[in-house]
Amino acid sequence: MDPVMNDDKKQLMDDQYHILHINRTSTRLEKLGTTHVYPKGFIFDFREKEPDAIYYIKRGRIIAYEDSYDGDHRIYNIMSSGSLFLEEYVLFPRTCPVLFKTLTDSELLKIHRCDLIRAFKSDVDVTLDILDSVCNKFCASMETQRIGIKQDAEWKLCRMLISTFENYGRAYKDGMILNEKVSHQLLADLLGMNRVTVSRKFKKLRDLGLISQESGHLYLPDIDAFLTYMDQLEFQSSTTRSDNESDGTQLPRD
Amino acid sequence: MDPVMNDDKKQLMDDQYHILHINRTSTRLEKLGTTHVYPKGFIFDFREKEPDAIYYIKRGRIIAYEDSYDGDHRIYNIMSSGSLFLEEYVLFPRTCPVLFKTLTDSELLKIHRCDLIRAFKSDVDVTLDILDSVCNKFCASMETQRIGIKQDAEWKLCRMLISTFENYGRAYKDGMILNEKVSHQLLADLLGMNRVTVSRKFKKLRDLGLISQESGHLYLPDIDAFLTYMDQLEFQSSTTRSDNESDGTQLPRD
Repeated sequence: MDPVMNDDKKQLMDDQYHILHINRTSTRLEKLGTTHVYPKGFIFDFREKEPDAIYYIKRGRIIAYEDSYDGDHRIYNIMSSGSLFLEEYVLFPRTCPVLFKTLTDSELLKIHRCDLIRAFKSDVDVTLDILDSVCNKFCASMETQRIGIKQDAEWKLCRMLISTFENYGRAYKDGMILNEKVSHQLLADLLGMNRVTVSRKFKKLRDLGLISQESGHLYLPDIDAFLTYMDQLEFQSSTTRSDNESDGTQLPRD
Repeated sequence: MDPVMNDDKKQLMDDQYHILHINRTSTRLEKLGTTHVYPKGFIFDFREKEPDAIYYIKRGRIIAYEDSYDGDHRIYNIMSSGSLFLEEYVLFPRTCPVLFKTLTDSELLKIHRCDLIRAFKSDVDVTLDILDSVCNKFCASMETQRIGIKQDAEWKLCRMLISTFENYGRAYKDGMILNEKVSHQLLADLLGMNRVTVSRKFKKLRDLGLISQESGHLYLPDIDAFLTYMDQLEFQSSTTRSDNESDGTQLPRD
């Protein structure tokens, strides 16, 4: 990604939105496991049986997801090269309620539990790699919980867009452009929203001139204006919530 | 806690609800830090400055919480002896968005970051203690996220009650009784709900005979009946959600 944002602005965004960054070199981990290639659409399912190995993504993209009884598809996380997955369920064996699927052909490093624990004893940096990954995931998950109860759908969509631009965008004119297509359905699955809601919010952001299309790609013309708009939404949301709270106390509704 | 539930039932509950258990001996950790006593109501605030020590609760009770602009009090977690806190924000220094407060006079073991990392190099069990704590917290947080979008207020209250009985209850007659008072306000703060909603759901559970009062304490007369009722709520909720989904697609509403 080109450094279109200056460091202060990036720091501010990281502080404010706790966007998940896991990018480490795999050299240390490489020695511990074996590399396998999984085709697009491959599913890792450990809902019944505890996993005995963790995976490090060398190349490709993986989603953590769940399909509910009613056919609802919910994506909890999109991970790309440099990320680890399954470690929380491997170190202290337990079944994993969510599934993992390759979004593209992916090259993964598979490290068995015993090899990993053996490495903890000889290389403290391996320990810190794993701890870093779990701590990052915990903080991101807490952040989702905190935001979930506080903000409305539009703010959440804006946050997801900013995070997507930060991870997959590059400098373009005065703003940033996304190299990849991101469908409204994918964003809806990530946010646990209806696709129709996402499309309507998108239209609003386009009408306000906060996002647009440039040669078929999503374009963010003014990062400052976008963040300022999010601040306004946040303020509105906190005001509305106060109103609802007092309503609720005086006149309870189910 | 008396073993009122047989192991199968407890295992089932753990699997189903991923209730957070952190109970380890502090002997290993004790050598690494110093013990301090904090009075009831003491606040740990690391929103501006990164913490440089983790805390292990030897005795007492701590909440992780946040007060929003609009005066909303939200509790994310209640921790008691055997729990660690702040480790996610200490190992890879970052500010912590939530506050911690002692609910009772508490005796805490304070371990500095450098002493902890030094211990990682010499004692793999210390590493595993910390990893266990972070993994547990991540899994509990993921569970809250998963449930948050799936279940209704009543199911969430039931889950919170079952978890409370498991952690603080004891065998009584054919069921379990709570040793401690749990106010509707505390449950509302934990669940991010209105107190009025919690009180109304409580009344419904009492009317159904699923909970009652015994000598001033909350009593769960029949654990099986309670879990069966939760299964029914879960089924209803998934049916209702399907209906809403198809409504939304055909006739979008904000």
